[in-house]
Amino acid sequence: MSARVLIVDDLYPNVRLLETKLSLEYFDVAVAMNGPDALAICEKGACDVVLLDVMMPGMDGFEVCRRLKSNPVTAHLPVVIVTALDQPADRLRGLDAGADDFLTKPIDDTALLTRVRSLVRLKAVTDELRSRALATREIGGPDPLALAAADTGEGARILLVEDRPSAIDRIGTALSQHHQVTVETDPHRALVRAPEGGFDLALVSLDLEGFDGLRLCSQIRSLERTRNMALIMIGEMHEKARITRGLDFGVNDYLLRPIDRNELIARVRTQVRRRRFSETLRGALQASMELAITDDLTGLHNRRYLDRHLGPVFGEAALQQKGLACLLLDIDRFKSINDTYGHEAGDEVLRAFAERIRQYVRPMDILARYGGEEIVMVVPGAELPDARAIAERIRERIEATPFAIDGGTRDIGVTVSVGVSVRRTTDTGPADLLKRADTALYRAKSSGRNRVEAAAA
Amino acid sequence: MSARVLIVDDLYPNVRLLETKLSLEYFDVAVAMNGPDALAICEKGACDVVLLDVMMPGMDGFEVCRRLKSNPVTAHLPVVIVTALDQPADRLRGLDAGADDFLTKPIDDTALLTRVRSLVRLKAVTDELRSRALATREIGGPDPLALAAADTGEGARILLVEDRPSAIDRIGTALSQHHQVTVETDPHRALVRAPEGGFDLALVSLDLEGFDGLRLCSQIRSLERTRNMALIMIGEMHEKARITRGLDFGVNDYLLRPIDRNELIARVRTQVRRRRFSETLRGALQASMELAITDDLTGLHNRRYLDRHLGPVFGEAALQQKGLACLLLDIDRFKSINDTYGHEAGDEVLRAFAERIRQYVRPMDILARYGGEEIVMVVPGAELPDARAIAERIRERIEATPFAIDGGTRDIGVTVSVGVSVRRTTDTGPADLLKRADTALYRAKSSGRNRVEAAAA
Repeated sequence: MSARVLIVDDLYPNVRLLETKLSLEYFDVAVAMNGPDALAICEKGACDVVLLDVMMPGMDGFEVCRRLKSNPVTAHLPVVIVTALDQPADRLRGLDAGADDFLTKPIDDTALLTRVRSLVRLKAVTDELRSRALATREIGGPDPLALAAADTGEGARILLVEDRPSAIDRIGTALSQHHQVTVETDPHRALVRAPEGGFDLALVSLDLEGFDGLRLCSQIRSLERTRNMALIMIGEMHEKARITRGLDFGVNDYLLRPIDRNELIARVRTQVRRRRFSETLRGALQASMELAITDDLTGLHNRRYLDRHLGPVFGEAALQQKGLACLLLDIDRFKSINDTYGHEAGDEVLRAFAERIRQYVRPMDILARYGGEEIVMVVPGAELPDARAIAERIRERIEATPFAIDGGTRDIGVTVSVGVSVRRTTDTGPADLLKRADTALYRAKSSGRNRVEAAAA
Repeated sequence: MSARVLIVDDLYPNVRLLETKLSLEYFDVAVAMNGPDALAICEKGACDVVLLDVMMPGMDGFEVCRRLKSNPVTAHLPVVIVTALDQPADRLRGLDAGADDFLTKPIDDTALLTRVRSLVRLKAVTDELRSRALATREIGGPDPLALAAADTGEGARILLVEDRPSAIDRIGTALSQHHQVTVETDPHRALVRAPEGGFDLALVSLDLEGFDGLRLCSQIRSLERTRNMALIMIGEMHEKARITRGLDFGVNDYLLRPIDRNELIARVRTQVRRRRFSETLRGALQASMELAITDDLTGLHNRRYLDRHLGPVFGEAALQQKGLACLLLDIDRFKSINDTYGHEAGDEVLRAFAERIRQYVRPMDILARYGGEEIVMVVPGAELPDARAIAERIRERIEATPFAIDGGTRDIGVTVSVGVSVRRTTDTGPADLLKRADTALYRAKSSGRNRVEAAAA
């Protein structure tokens, strides 16, 4: 994918060199000569990946990286530190600051470009998710970007696919302090277990006995249920060509043997955070869509959900000539609860009322708040005697136990009236069914309340 | 990206050859030996890209392709027809059936792999969108996948970046029958116009005088506002290396000179459909998220929106020591409208009531359905006299023109009572503001209705 690369370096010749290389590869290049400028460009959303020098006057590269990674607006940007510093301690500082990689000058062009391309491709996939999730902020609730940026990258479920006992021991010990590690020595079994263990990340050895670890990576990446897992390869220095191949088809990162314990921990943390970033965005999108069909007060489905799902359920029952019952449940004298004890108490009663009814519902039933203090329950497969029995049990349950109000400091007695109807072959649609339940409810109310009335089948 | 490739061919040696090549490149390969099997695998969602032979007994490849492209569940799958047929007419039949490409045997391996990789990468980006959009079907409303699959790929806005008069003429004439074509001979101006014209697709010549068309493609692909545009390159046969480069960084397709008119039309149509597929999914996601904050009956924002946005608006006003007014508007004797003319009529009145009030609202105001027949309007910056004036104008407007009911066959007079309040420095939160508006509304109701009452500032 084409992308905008931000080069951050205070020395013009360095900038110029990188700019030429990247430009030849059809990347769009932006330049910042110091940390604050770099942060500003990133915050404006004007780049896709950052190549960051360390030694700059004022704010150094480590600090720039840390700030990018802790800011919800920029935390998703991949950062590659490109520097003349070559001590393991420097490398570790970079990775600890959250950098996706740390390349030492003189730069191997192929390594740099492979890395940038791979990061850009992975980012293109989550960008779509991110831009949709941004819209959820309009709806309110917790900001998914802030949640994601605040993640520590600890406590992940990790699948280690490795068959060398010494490596299993070393890696397992290092990671177990921060994560929950599952070891699998057999790559075939690993592929079976990968989708089942709820893993955040898999670490895969490229030197498994008699099996190409790269193939396992590619399978994990292409299977529907595992394609969003983070993936890190473990290989030898002389396997750079295979590692490049892996990065090309979507592996997130790699570690070279002998594995540095701290580098292992840092790279795993970075990929765990990246994976959780996507998961948080997916979750926010899902939650905001569910809001549209959820009643805020009771947590039940809302009228909109009922309107859109009752038709198909009714049609299905008619087609299969099966029973279908509708219960309309209305709290008795709810207005007087509100007037006597206040709206807060009324809300408490409504919530508890919904919660009690929820106990009687199977997964295929529909339960929705129909209006003010009225709840509708639709029971596919039910005939009149079943429906009446369910209604009667609910009525007893509501009457039997008083409702706590004022935060549990007092109790009040509540009763419910229920109108029951079942589908007739002469019904032309769900409106007929609802209408009869409504009429039956009216009869229950007018004949003294706290009772179940049913329309004839 | 790694991916699952489905090979569809009835001859085992052909299958074997392709399977070996793809497997070496770490693709996961599935095989179908006939059309119906291929359709079944695709419907199950078990592949990412389809390599399709044409001549098979029973259902031929053209028919398989057509069925895949017209089925909402499979329309997004890229299809490459790989066949020994080599007549232009065959090629055209394949492209007309909706294939993304048509490669003639013996296959150039590099061309095939470049193509498959490019299609897989582009698909990875929309897959995320697609899987989120699938969740919108739970909410109801039109099925975005069905909408997208039904698109004709006609009537698009196309930007043609080309400086050869003869090519402009030929391409322009061919496409103008189906689309709206804008010609730009200057690549720099093209980059400026691309984000502004609402274009679905850009066709870019790789042989522009003194400018590398590939760079323009890469810029269009990396700019935020144009990155979702469909892109087709126009090049010469000897420029295959540059074309491969373009496909690698995300250009969707290419055409070789001399351009075949029908192939041009077919490839443009395919890319327009692909682009609209993504746009439809984005739209569906956006719409389903907006549902969560929208009242179905009136189309105004709902109580949930008010609850989540009033706090910040109130805080902002307090911080800047600016005015903030709240109007609570309640239809007079609404229950008797419902009782006398029926619920349908009540709904008609409510909708028209909301519509009239909407005329008085600026973009920064909040307008939400507060409950049954009550609408709340929040006006940042307004002091008491302004707020009272707005309320009075609305009251007059409601009273002045009767409301049409029963589908416009009769009119009834409706009036509104309004409670007005403005922020006080002693207010601890928006609840105080709402509470005073509610009390003022109660006064308006009890002193005869059809009037505005305001709480003191």
